[in-house]
Amino acid sequence: MEKINIVEKLSLFNDHWNPRIVAELNGQYIKLVKFQGEFVWHKHDLEDEMFLVIKGNFTMEFRDRTVEIKENEFLIVPRGVEHRPVAENEVSVMLFEPKTTLNTGDAKGKLQRENLGNI
Amino acid sequence: MEKINIVEKLSLFNDHWNPRIVAELNGQYIKLVKFQGEFVWHKHDLEDEMFLVIKGNFTMEFRDRTVEIKENEFLIVPRGVEHRPVAENEVSVMLFEPKTTLNTGDAKGKLQRENLGNI
Repeated sequence: MEKINIVEKLSLFNDHWNPRIVAELNGQYIKLVKFQGEFVWHKHDLEDEMFLVIKGNFTMEFRDRTVEIKENEFLIVPRGVEHRPVAENEVSVMLFEPKTTLNTGDAKGKLQRENLGNI
Repeated sequence: MEKINIVEKLSLFNDHWNPRIVAELNGQYIKLVKFQGEFVWHKHDLEDEMFLVIKGNFTMEFRDRTVEIKENEFLIVPRGVEHRPVAENEVSVMLFEPKTTLNTGDAKGKLQRENLGNI
């Protein structure tokens, strides 16, 4: 029951595409992550994912369109929908998703991160 | 799969203690609410609640202490824990909680809101 300062937590890491767990509630994790560059195309068969931009902006690519997401904006990607985050410049994002969610979904590969750290 | 601008959504209402639903994922709602004044003491037996301050600040009172929460900070109140939000000045807050969560929890009373509006 301690409050969490998002900016302070973001100052604790600098690597990209490596989400950290900052809190847990109702079977969901709150994660913080920094994106830069292109991620891999993937989907999550069982989990909806929420991306809330804290600082910067990025583009969520879908197979048929793209959505630009800026500070104070969020996007929910429903389960089963292929997507790929792309960030021209570094962006800090808060994720809200079930504890079971794997960052690369069905794609796996070298960007996959398991056993995420807590900060 | 449209992005949601939090500031824009907050401009759509002005009343206090009346949460609006802005999104849904994984059985959870994302709500926006404005607080001003003192709420009622209550708890939620089955739901953890997350309070993320978008603009302003408020105090979460617990029976044995208080926590001041400012912009870019959040607090999770675990299920079963009595709490009371108090805001000296108006504060805008994002809530993440299960769809079943009633704003006044076990306290009910005149501040209870059911059938929340979507914005």
